[in-house]
Formats: sequence, C-alpha cells, structure tokens
Amino acid sequence: MKSLTQLNPQRLFPAEPTVRAVTEELYDSVKDLPIVSPHGHVDLQLLVKNEPFKNPADLFIYFDHYVTRLLHTQGYDLSELGKGDTDEAAARKAWSILCSNWHMLAGTNSGYWLAHEFGTLFNIDETPNSENAAELYDIVQEHLDQPAFLPRALFDRFNIAFLATTDDPCDDLAGHRDLANDPTFSGRVAPTFRPDAYLDPRKPGWAQKAGNLIAAAGLNGQSFVNFIEAFRIRREFFQINGAVSVDVGVTEPYTVELTEAKATELFEQALAGKISETDAREFAGFMLFEQIRMSAEDGLVLTLHAGVIRNHSTTTFEKFGPDTGQDIPVAVEFVENLRPALERFGLNKNLHLILFSIDETTWSREVAPLAGFYPSVFIGAPWWFLDAPDSLLRFRVATTEIAGFYRGSGFIDDTRAFLSIPARHDMARRVDCSFLARLVVEGRITMAQAETIAVDLVVTIPRKAFKL
Amino acid sequence: MKSLTQLNPQRLFPAEPTVRAVTEELYDSVKDLPIVSPHGHVDLQLLVKNEPFKNPADLFIYFDHYVTRLLHTQGYDLSELGKGDTDEAAARKAWSILCSNWHMLAGTNSGYWLAHEFGTLFNIDETPNSENAAELYDIVQEHLDQPAFLPRALFDRFNIAFLATTDDPCDDLAGHRDLANDPTFSGRVAPTFRPDAYLDPRKPGWAQKAGNLIAAAGLNGQSFVNFIEAFRIRREFFQINGAVSVDVGVTEPYTVELTEAKATELFEQALAGKISETDAREFAGFMLFEQIRMSAEDGLVLTLHAGVIRNHSTTTFEKFGPDTGQDIPVAVEFVENLRPALERFGLNKNLHLILFSIDETTWSREVAPLAGFYPSVFIGAPWWFLDAPDSLLRFRVATTEIAGFYRGSGFIDDTRAFLSIPARHDMARRVDCSFLARLVVEGRITMAQAETIAVDLVVTIPRKAFKL
Amino acid sequence: MKSLTQLNPQRLFPAEPTVRAVTEELYDSVKDLPIVSPHGHVDLQLLVKNEPFKNPADLFIYFDHYVTRLLHTQGYDLSELGKGDTDEAAARKAWSILCSNWHMLAGTNSGYWLAHEFGTLFNIDETPNSENAAELYDIVQEHLDQPAFLPRALFDRFNIAFLATTDDPCDDLAGHRDLANDPTFSGRVAPTFRPDAYLDPRKPGWAQKAGNLIAAAGLNGQSFVNFIEAFRIRREFFQINGAVSVDVGVTEPYTVELTEAKATELFEQALAGKISETDAREFAGFMLFEQIRMSAEDGLVLTLHAGVIRNHSTTTFEKFGPDTGQDIPVAVEFVENLRPALERFGLNKNLHLILFSIDETTWSREVAPLAGFYPSVFIGAPWWFLDAPDSLLRFRVATTEIAGFYRGSGFIDDTRAFLSIPARHDMARRVDCSFLARLVVEGRITMAQAETIAVDLVVTIPRKAFKL
Repeated sequence: MKSLTQLNPQRLFPAEPTVRAVTEELYDSVKDLPIVSPHGHVDLQLLVKNEPFKNPADLFIYFDHYVTRLLHTQGYDLSELGKGDTDEAAARKAWSILCSNWHMLAGTNSGYWLAHEFGTLFNIDETPNSENAAELYDIVQEHLDQPAFLPRALFDRFNIAFLATTDDPCDDLAGHRDLANDPTFSGRVAPTFRPDAYLDPRKPGWAQKAGNLIAAAGLNGQSFVNFIEAFRIRREFFQINGAVSVDVGVTEPYTVELTEAKATELFEQALAGKISETDAREFAGFMLFEQIRMSAEDGLVLTLHAGVIRNHSTTTFEKFGPDTGQDIPVAVEFVENLRPALERFGLNKNLHLILFSIDETTWSREVAPLAGFYPSVFIGAPWWFLDAPDSLLRFRVATTEIAGFYRGSGFIDDTRAFLSIPARHDMARRVDCSFLARLVVEGRITMAQAETIAVDLVVTIPRKAFKL
Repeated sequence: MKSLTQLNPQRLFPAEPTVRAVTEELYDSVKDLPIVSPHGHVDLQLLVKNEPFKNPADLFIYFDHYVTRLLHTQGYDLSELGKGDTDEAAARKAWSILCSNWHMLAGTNSGYWLAHEFGTLFNIDETPNSENAAELYDIVQEHLDQPAFLPRALFDRFNIAFLATTDDPCDDLAGHRDLANDPTFSGRVAPTFRPDAYLDPRKPGWAQKAGNLIAAAGLNGQSFVNFIEAFRIRREFFQINGAVSVDVGVTEPYTVELTEAKATELFEQALAGKISETDAREFAGFMLFEQIRMSAEDGLVLTLHAGVIRNHSTTTFEKFGPDTGQDIPVAVEFVENLRPALERFGLNKNLHLILFSIDETTWSREVAPLAGFYPSVFIGAPWWFLDAPDSLLRFRVATTEIAGFYRGSGFIDDTRAFLSIPARHDMARRVDCSFLARLVVEGRITMAQAETIAVDLVVTIPRKAFKL
Repeated sequence: MKSLTQLNPQRLFPAEPTVRAVTEELYDSVKDLPIVSPHGHVDLQLLVKNEPFKNPADLFIYFDHYVTRLLHTQGYDLSELGKGDTDEAAARKAWSILCSNWHMLAGTNSGYWLAHEFGTLFNIDETPNSENAAELYDIVQEHLDQPAFLPRALFDRFNIAFLATTDDPCDDLAGHRDLANDPTFSGRVAPTFRPDAYLDPRKPGWAQKAGNLIAAAGLNGQSFVNFIEAFRIRREFFQINGAVSVDVGVTEPYTVELTEAKATELFEQALAGKISETDAREFAGFMLFEQIRMSAEDGLVLTLHAGVIRNHSTTTFEKFGPDTGQDIPVAVEFVENLRPALERFGLNKNLHLILFSIDETTWSREVAPLAGFYPSVFIGAPWWFLDAPDSLLRFRVATTEIAGFYRGSGFIDDTRAFLSIPARHDMARRVDCSFLARLVVEGRITMAQAETIAVDLVVTIPRKAFKL
C-alpha cells in the first residue's frame, strides 16, 4: 500500500471498474486543460513582487485557517501557528506540530490538498509524522529556494488562464496595473470588487469606510446620493482595471427596495451612529439590492456568499483577528430574501447573480430551482467547508436533476493558498468526471454528452457565468 | 456507445454487477404491473374527447413547465414556448428550440423522461439537436396522426389501472360521469377534490370563490356554517363521483383549532376584505384543520403538498400566468404545524394524511418519524423537482431506516404530461429495485423479502394508502 | 438465499469487491475489541438483581418504543404491546403481533438489530411470521431460562468494558455502589447525571423537583444560590460515584448568561409558578449555560441531545406515558444558541461538550465546523432514528471532510435494550470500516492510516471524548 503522498493516479475515481474506466477516459480529456479561477483570495503581491516563499510554515500553515483550526482543536494556541513570532525556530515548531498531528487531517479536504501538493511539487514520499518533520521541512525549504518555485514560475506551471483576486473598493489597483503592464508576465489576473464592509452599518467602522469610499470616488460630501454614486464610480474603476465581478458576503441574503427618501434617512442615522438594529438590517438589505441593480446595469457579475457567522469566538478574534478558523455556517434562506431583487432584476439578461451556499440543504431546495428559471441566477460551486470530494458529489447530485449542468458557476477555488489551486481544480475535475461516468453507466446520458459536458464544466461554463 | 434514445434496458440500475443482477431480477417481476396513478394533473378532456394530440410542441413543450423553465434560462421568452402564437410555424420553432438546447436537459428528470418517451413511443434513435429538429418533428407528428396515438389507445397501452385528475370543488364532474358511463372506455378515472383556492383568504378572489362554493352546494347565505357545510356537501359529491382523495397545497402546513365563534368572525372579516394578514393565516390554518377533520369523517384521503412559493416572479405571472416554471420551494416544518390537527385526529384510523415534501430535510427529520407513529400519517413520494432517480434514492435512504417500506404513499407521478406517466412509474420501479437490491447484497433483507416489497411498492402500498 | 436471521458475515459491507475486501480486513481488526458504551439507558437493576429476563415480549417489545411505534401504525393499541396486561397470554399475543408484522421492520434499524440478536443469541434461523411465532417464542423462552442468559453473564459475553446508565440527580446511587462493591461482578458501570427535569421551569413539576434537589444536596432554603450549589454538590456526588458525564436533552440548545440578580428573580417567579413563557426560556437557557460552566470546572463531560419534541400526542402520553414512540425531531440550531456559552467556555480545555443532533442538516453545517475549531466541542454520533447503517454513513460523509475522524464522540448506543448493545456497536464498526475502505480505494487515505483510525474509532476516540 502506498503512502498517501505517493499519489494514486486514479484517486477519487469510484471503485467499481466500469465506472472507473469511464471516469478515467473523461478525466484524461480534461486533466490538462488550463485553470480558470474567477474567484479567490490569493495575495496579488505574491505575483507583483515574485519573491520566494519564506518557509514551509509560512507557505502551508500560517495563512491556511483550514489547517490551523484543526490543530487548534488539539490544544495548540494560535500563537504557535503563525499568529505570534515567525522566525525560523517558530516556523520549524509550527511545521513539527502539523506533521505530528497529520492524523487530524485524514479524510479532510485540507489533508487531501496538502498530500497532493507535497507529492506533486516536492516529491515527498512519506506520510508526515513527528519523526520525519525536520527532514520534510528541509526538503520543502530546498525547493522554495529554487527559481522554479517563485510565484510567477508556479503560475505558469499551474497553467492558470485566469486568476481573480479580491480587493477593497478603495484600493487603487496599482498592483494590478503594474502586473498587467509588466512585459515579463503574461498571465491574466483581475481584481474583484468586494464591498461587504461598506454595505452594512452593523459592521465595525462602517461610517469611516463610507466616507473613504466617497473620497476614493473623488466626490465631496457625505450624502446618500454621493454614497451610491461612489459605488458606481468605483465599480466602473474596477471594471476598467479588468474586474469581471463583485463579491458580496452576508450572513443572510436579505434584500429590500427602499425609497430614496427612506434610504437617505437611514444613511444619515447610520453615519451618526444612531441607527437601530432593525433599520440597519433594512439599510444593508437595500445596499445588497443596489449592488444587484448596479450589476444589472454595468454587467459586473455578482457572486453572493451567504450563511456564515464570522468570528464566532470574540476572544479569538480580539487576540488573533479574523480568518482564524472560527467562521461558522448557519442556515440560510434565498427564496424570500432575494425575491425583492429578483422581482426587479431577475429577468434582466445582463445580470449574472451567482449564489454560493454553505448550507447544503439550499442546493436542491432553493438554489437549483431559482437557477432553473431565472436567466440571471447561477448555481455557485460548493464553498468553504464543502469544497471536498464527497461534498462536490453531493452538490452534483442535488442540483443536476433539477437544473442540469449548464446553470452552474464552474468550480471556484476561493483560496488564499496559491499552491493549492491545482490540487483543488484537479479534485473538482476528478469528482465531476466520476459523476458523469455514473450517469453514463446508468444509461442517463450518452458518452458523447458526457465528453462534451466534462470539457464544458472546465471551460465553457465558468467563462459564460463570469463573462470571460 | 448508444445515443440516449436507444434506451439501455438496464438504465438506472447500479453499476456494480452483483447489485445490478439482483436489481434486474426484482425489476423483471414488477416492470409489467399495471400503473396506479392516484394523484396527477392530466386534463380529463384528453380522455373524454379522445382527439389526436395537436403537434409535438403542444405535446412536449407548451404544457410542461419543467421543460420551458430550462429553456427560459437560456434567454428564450415564454411567448416562444407556447404562451404566445401556437400555429404550426410557432410549434416548429418551439420544437427547434428544444432540440437545439437538448444539452440543457442532460441529467435532469425532464431529459430522462423525454428520452424515454422518444425512444419507446416514437422509435427515435438520435440525440436531438438543431440539425435533426425538423426531421424529428415530422416523425413525432406522423405518429400522432395514427389511431394508436389517440389518448384512450395510449391509456390502454400504458396499462393504467387507476388515474386521478385534480378538480375544482365547484366542478360539476360531468366529464367524469360521461367517461364512467361510456361503454367504449373501461379505464378507471377518478376526480380529486382540490380546495386550495377556497381555504386561504390571502389568495386572490377568495371571497368570490367562497360564494361560489356555497352556491355549488345548493345552500343559501354566505354564513360560516354554510361555508363549512358546503365543503362537506361538495366532498360528498366528489366521493359519489368516484373521488378517493382531497389534495391541498400550502406554503406552510399550519393548522390551528378555532372556536366556531372566532372562525365566524374571521370568515366575515375575510368576506368583507378586512381581515389582517395574521388573522388570515389563522383562518387558513383552521380551514386546513377542518379539511383534515372532514377526512377523518368521510374517509377521503388527504394529500398535503407543502413548502412552495407559487409565482415567484410577479412579472412572469402577470404576463404568462401560473405554472410557468417559477414556483420555488422553501423550508417547511410539519411537526409543530400539524400538531393541533394530529392531537385531534392523528390516532383516527379513518384518516389517511399523506405528507408530500419538497424540502428533503424533512424526510428523515419529520415525515418518517411522524409516519412511524401515527396510523393516519403516510410518507408522500418525492415530489416535483425531486421525482428524479437520485432524489428517489435519497428518499428511500432517508425514510426506510426510520419507517420501513410500508408507511409510504407509493409512487405518485403528479404530472400534466400524459405521455410521461409510464416513463415516471418505470423510473420509480427501477430505482426502488436498485435500492432493495443493495439491501439484499448488504445482508439487510432477504431476497424473499425484497421480492415481496418490490411488488407491494407498486401494488399493495398505493392501494392501501389511497384506499383503492 | 439465506433467511435474514442466518446472518451474513459480510453484512453492511459494500458490494464492490475491492472495497468489500478492504472493509473486511479493517473489520477483522476491530470486531472483537471490547465495547465502550459511555451513554445509554440500560436499567441498572438488571445487573444489580441479575434475574432472568421475564419473557420474549418483555425482552424485545415492551420496552422498545422503536418497535412498538411501528406496530402501532398498523392499528395495534399500545395496550396490546406491553402498556396493559403483561401475563404470559398477553406476552404471547404481543410476540405474535411482532412476528406477523415482521415486514414492517424490513429495512429499519430495529429490524436489523432484532435479526442480529435472534441469530447470534438464539440461533433462530427463520424469518418470523404468524406461523412460526409460537415456536419462536418457545425457543427464546428456553434460552432465557438458562444461566448463560442472566444479565451479568451476557455483560461478560458482550465484552463490555464500560457501561454508563442515566440517573436522576437526586438518585442515591446505592445500586451503583452495590454493584461496584460486589466482588462477583467485575464490570465497570457508571452513573450519568441527567438534570433535564430540573433545568427548565416549563417542565411539569419543576418547582417540586428544585426543592428535592436542594434537599438531596443537604442544603436548607429554596434560594437560587442553594439551587446552583445543589447542582454542584450533586454533580460532585455523581463524580465520586464514578460518573464521567452529564446528559442534557433539550428541544432547542439555547444558552444565555444572566446576572445573579436576574436569575434569582426568575428562579423565584418560577418557584411561585408565576414565570412567563419568555422568562422561563431565559431561565432554562441560563441553566444550560450553568451546566456547561460547571462542566468546565468539575470536568464532567456534557452530552447535549437537542432537537426533539417529546410526547407529540398528548392523548397517547396521558394514557401510556412517555417513551411511547411519539417523540418527534424538529430543526435545530447550535451556532447562535450555543454562542453565549462558547464565548465564555469554548476555549477551556477542561470542557468536553458533545453535540448530538437528530437534525442531520446540522452535521455539516454547524456541528463539524464548531468541533473543527473549539477544543471543547465534540461531534456526537448519529442518534435515535439516525443510528442506522445508511444514516451512520451519511454522518461520516457529512462530518469527516470538515473535521476529520478525531473530533467525534465515538459510537454511542443510547439504548434501553440491553441485548441490542452488541448489535449496535457491531453495526457501527461495519459501517465505519466500509467508509474507511472507500477512502482507501479512492486514494484519499493510506491503508496504514485506515487501520489506525478503525481501531481509534472504537478505542481511543470514545475514551478521549469521555475522559475514560
């Protein structure tokens, strides 16, 4: 039996030999296609600066809260995992914690991706443990010091056709322009307009940010009219700089249409810090409505990520900040919440509204039925905790019978972990091919249909959903 | 590799050879059994008039909002799909749209049924596309012009033992009497009492309908007492004319018991158009309670379809009417909502209350546990978006471990599309046999048990649930 | 084909030969390991008195409301199933009802366990039916009369390493001490502190019970301070007598932190029977918060069972009491409800809070994400209706990709039915091995990892979760 990191070329293929053979045939036709990554969180400066990755812990642990949260459950403090000192001794210690707790990752998506990365990039041929931790650290470090492991070299090696970052609406996008104008880099990297913090007066620092946005748009005066116009201007600025989408994350995807008078009143109360909880929800609901309206107008795709309570542990948040593994999903409702916006813009063919849900009950109940009628609604790929092999398969099973294959977003890696991008897309391709293969063997689609769909899932479908 | 429409005789059977062989053995024993269809929406006039189907678009597209919704997502206006002109040119155009967008249906239940119908009824041996659309249109049209394709001939060919339509409480059921008295037609076709529009004052035109119901029952005076008595009289009229069940569709299955005084007060407010939203909900909840009470008394089976928001897109509804693909499911709750009615009538053995849920989370959490205790509660088969192969399997997996096989309704096709009835029942038989086969191979039931259950699911179980 | 009760040694193993072979290899390594049963409802007096089981109906029907509920759906009154006369004639009649309705149990967990017990303990080699009922009764009765079927002999035969009962906080635990001090019995049997009835003023008799608790703790005066101190004292008493955990069952797992002044006020209102519904919920929420706080202090593991409406049919409850098959699950929410308690104690490593959910949507959405961050939160095994083969597999699929294998509670049988304990644990081992085998064949974990995990799931993981 091989070690985990001697990667099985047929990994994730179903065991049954007939289905496995069809899966393999389909997978062979898509495995080398370029990666389209229209939504993610890779730090642009990686590619702008193109400096070597610092060390194995910096690369695989410090910024991957999927991994740190599981180590945290074993009693390790986040200060030991990159939220404290990060010199080489600390890096070696964090790495050693990871290797000694490798069993915690067995069966998880993080474990799967790390094994893929260790095997494909570093030729690591052993299951990590406390004994080989130091040696593995050295192996990874040696690779990182080579030019082939500079970010741009990896970008080429990964065969990334399109990569989107996520950016603050006030960002000057200088990095994106620098990269686009750099004759030595030919990749297509686009910004994404992420206005979350500016939409909801319940978020800390909202009033300050509202002012910043108006200023960034070059407008004077903190009026509601200016606030809305500032969104339009900044979205246009992003679009000019290559953005194809706007990304909004909310706990509940509540939308409501307000009169301008009412919205103005709430805006002023919010600026003054005197808005009630109920009115703040109304205002945030109207701001989401407005982002959808603007997308129907300017054509920027709107990706909506709903159903997460951020920073569930206030103690952890105050000590270590956000993105520390304590964002927890909750039940989400799209049908009533989005109705006001869909009543107004749902039939508008210029609007692409992609619904990402971490509450998988909504896939068959709400998201697929909505996307099976409205030309503007698309089904977001499984997200966060759910972008894992079995979850991806549940997603296909839940949505395909209702809305087919062509109402989806295509796979989204949604990752900060640059090195995991190929592992993630490869996983999705394997799972999708295994799903298609089963339908073929069960006589539900022809092999010819499956062959076309397999390629479309990787190429045509994300390009259509994201207007690439 | 065959085209989709060269139907694989082992379609929907699991790939694993041992399970597949057991599935086939079980399926062979049920595949030719007569169809019992105790709930559906076939237009009675089809059978009364027995006229040829008009054309392929009229047959397969115009009245099938499962299909039109998916074409609608591709930017086709519903006016192109049968809600506008419907001459031959328009029919050919709609047909061409369907064939050109065949990929949209891949993996959906509609795609599966259409392929089944094309293959079994029209010997179509090609995957539809833009090139062969005109030719396929002609092939179907030629068949439709033959006597073997008249509705009654198909009724016999489909081996339908029982078919229920869905009818307005004020319907005079003349068509049903005509058909029953027609010596040239020997099929059993029964009406179903569908009082939805009369139960909830929030529905448009409720007051008018309440008056109509009282008049249809031959009573004078718009009193609450008459309103309730009118339901009793009309249910009895339906029962005399062969009805076995009452069908109620609601967004939430809320029930409440009101005093007659309170109900009278709310009835009068509702008639006067002066009832509050809250009180209208109370009144509707009492009306559902009353239908359940009457079912405990007169013995008509009550099928309850819960959890859908009808006509989500008001623009579409106003332009093209209901049943245009924009009814969207929402989360539903049965345990608290039905408690008042079950406290009163749940132990009554004369009551058969069948719970159909489109929110699949309720299958294991609420519906199977309720049906696993109350003699009156039955588990409705997967409905609407969920009557598809993988969904049917999820249904069996979710409910069987909790309530076994004998608390179900049997398969319900629930269809307007007459030609799809055999495809749907055949699908259910294949899936149920594959589920049973897995349990046999996993040593959880014996082959002898599986053989009995396979037949019971088709014959005994629906007959018991619907008192046939 | 064998009868059900000729047990297939490969039962529950997946059909696909490669996966089946790996499953078998893993299962062989765990099948004979001792049973750890840290949560259940076996009657301690069985072991204290060590008297023969009375008769087959007493053993398999009267106390198993999983079974009686399914017979109840067929129109049998609970008085025929052990809630009425229970002489030999009545026992034979109840047994006959069970055997005649054996088809009702096909595919259910109860049917699976009974078949396991009939086959392994009584060598019954026929599928029960109305014809062989009397003969089977005699066979079982003969066995029960033998010394090998006395409870303690079975305890040894079942290889139970640890068994927990569930006990009232006022229980003097004399039986536990007697058993522990009995030189002829070497098993480890521990009490569990079950304070439900004392936590929520909405429960019948709460005020009386609150007084009893204070008295049982040896305190004087019905003050809130004494009430809380009484919990502390009684928990300590249980701990001294071997308890490792506290078990709380709630409909909603609502927690809230109140000031002592506010809590005192509500306590006094509740004692006086004058507390509002809203305030009673607040008080119950604080009492759950307090149990969690105490667990962080005294280290007793807290198992939380949420999401059930008890005694749904009041008529049945009044006539036959609780635990009569009419406890019905409802949707449950952990993330917001537990937040106040987790904000305060979630990072405390002395706290072990195990979340059991009968609403399976929470497994991937809430429970696994919480347990994937908080060191104090553990994922409870599938519970009640969901401790069945396919449900266990769904549980593994839903939680493993998010939180791996090591954040679980291990399998819990949670049963009153002493004879079903080996059947249940064996079922869990088979299912877990089949899940692991699939991951191995799909290249997601190595065989070496699977071998370790298979054993850890049975030994290490429950021992860690329950601090054994």
